[in-house]
Amino acid sequence: MKRSIYFVSESTGITAKKVGQSLLSQFDGLEFDSHYVPFLDTPDKALALAQRLGEERLERGVRPIVFATLVDKLLRQILKQCACLYIELFDAFIDPLSAELGIQPTGRTGVTHGQRDQGRYDARIDAIHFAMANDDGIRLDKFDEADVILIGVSRSGKTPTCLYLAMNFGLRAANYPLTTDDFDRDDIPFQLLPFRHKIVGLTIDPVRLHRVREERRPGSTYSSLEQCQREVAAAMRIMARLNVSVLDSTSRSIEELASHIVEVPVGGAG
Amino acid sequence: MKRSIYFVSESTGITAKKVGQSLLSQFDGLEFDSHYVPFLDTPDKALALAQRLGEERLERGVRPIVFATLVDKLLRQILKQCACLYIELFDAFIDPLSAELGIQPTGRTGVTHGQRDQGRYDARIDAIHFAMANDDGIRLDKFDEADVILIGVSRSGKTPTCLYLAMNFGLRAANYPLTTDDFDRDDIPFQLLPFRHKIVGLTIDPVRLHRVREERRPGSTYSSLEQCQREVAAAMRIMARLNVSVLDSTSRSIEELASHIVEVPVGGAG
Repeated sequence: MKRSIYFVSESTGITAKKVGQSLLSQFDGLEFDSHYVPFLDTPDKALALAQRLGEERLERGVRPIVFATLVDKLLRQILKQCACLYIELFDAFIDPLSAELGIQPTGRTGVTHGQRDQGRYDARIDAIHFAMANDDGIRLDKFDEADVILIGVSRSGKTPTCLYLAMNFGLRAANYPLTTDDFDRDDIPFQLLPFRHKIVGLTIDPVRLHRVREERRPGSTYSSLEQCQREVAAAMRIMARLNVSVLDSTSRSIEELASHIVEVPVGGAG
Repeated sequence: MKRSIYFVSESTGITAKKVGQSLLSQFDGLEFDSHYVPFLDTPDKALALAQRLGEERLERGVRPIVFATLVDKLLRQILKQCACLYIELFDAFIDPLSAELGIQPTGRTGVTHGQRDQGRYDARIDAIHFAMANDDGIRLDKFDEADVILIGVSRSGKTPTCLYLAMNFGLRAANYPLTTDDFDRDDIPFQLLPFRHKIVGLTIDPVRLHRVREERRPGSTYSSLEQCQREVAAAMRIMARLNVSVLDSTSRSIEELASHIVEVPVGGAG
């Protein structure tokens, strides 16, 4: 029987889920039933969960595992005492941090993924709208307002990466798709040229691109391996001449691409 | 002088950054210089960082704080020995988990935010493209393929929430903006009616909406307080009659809205 996993928090539970999943990914060959329990913010809710954990323990013969980021001591106590392995993800680090910083923690919940820093939150939402409005070369007159501009062939990962950059780093990310027009003139549009320093190119293995495009338009010229090979080669020529950084999206997730794009070199300025 | 904070990882460093920021948000009134150091995956890079940390320690008179998710023991050792408070976010939990699960950890890096689970990764990317293609009522013929459909007035938070749901939960989220046409007929379009069970309404305080819209189109009828009040009231009437769940986006972040939307009730089915 699969073991039950619970991600529990007084607020969104996003951190508990991400960290818990990261930890579990270190153990191979196991399957889990995952349960996501955000907004567990009253003793009643904690008691209801404790009862459910007890029942699962009996049914499955193994303890459920709870990954939690609970601040309230009573809520924690309720879950710690029941039939589960309770892993509190924040608690162990608060004391050493408090000692180092010389101040007491606030014990406030829901700070991480809330709107507490309204200015920064608004900037993120703005960046998302910017990415939507400047996706896929829809318009060519706002590149001056972009923090970064991704170029690459259709389905090389530009759009999801731009949205990720906006959502998680608050960057205003535009993107421009390289198509026949660009390949014919062997260059990007003149509107883009002044912003070459902000451009990052995305490339992708033609075979993988072929497979991705086949999903979208099976049997089309657009998705044929030949067309994919030709486009990728032409795009690489343009990027090489522009002398822009190029990232390969073939086996990189959008998180990895975004991290490379915002990366500060270790030896670089602070 | 501000204290320096470093988020360090062999891969994207996204978990180190998020957890580190969560922990620091428990301490009020301090300002930090944050540095993001992903892809620290060789002893040379670790030594370069250690040297920089030592220099900062001397310059600022306080130790930098390093939040890390390093798997490699040598890399850890290099940073632990230098002039910083080194907080390893995963290590403390791996042993109890290993004991509970009865297996050894793999020690593999870059699993969390990579493409290891290709099927799930592709589904997320698909969901992002779906959200883009079904944003803002662009098309009304794909609601059958949606997992969730958000409705609400312009700038009530539909688009960013849909993108967040797609990106982080792999949900296919469409959205439809309630406008004059809907208010005149006092209903949603007939194409939406069969999918009422998938609809979630977003509402927002008219004063906040007024401020948000003013940023976008200052002095317009669209952004006037009166218009905002009228639209929100009309939207609420439609949502009430449809009997759909309604979430208030006034003081909720997109993370909080998304968590409410996907939340599994504690007493609900597993």
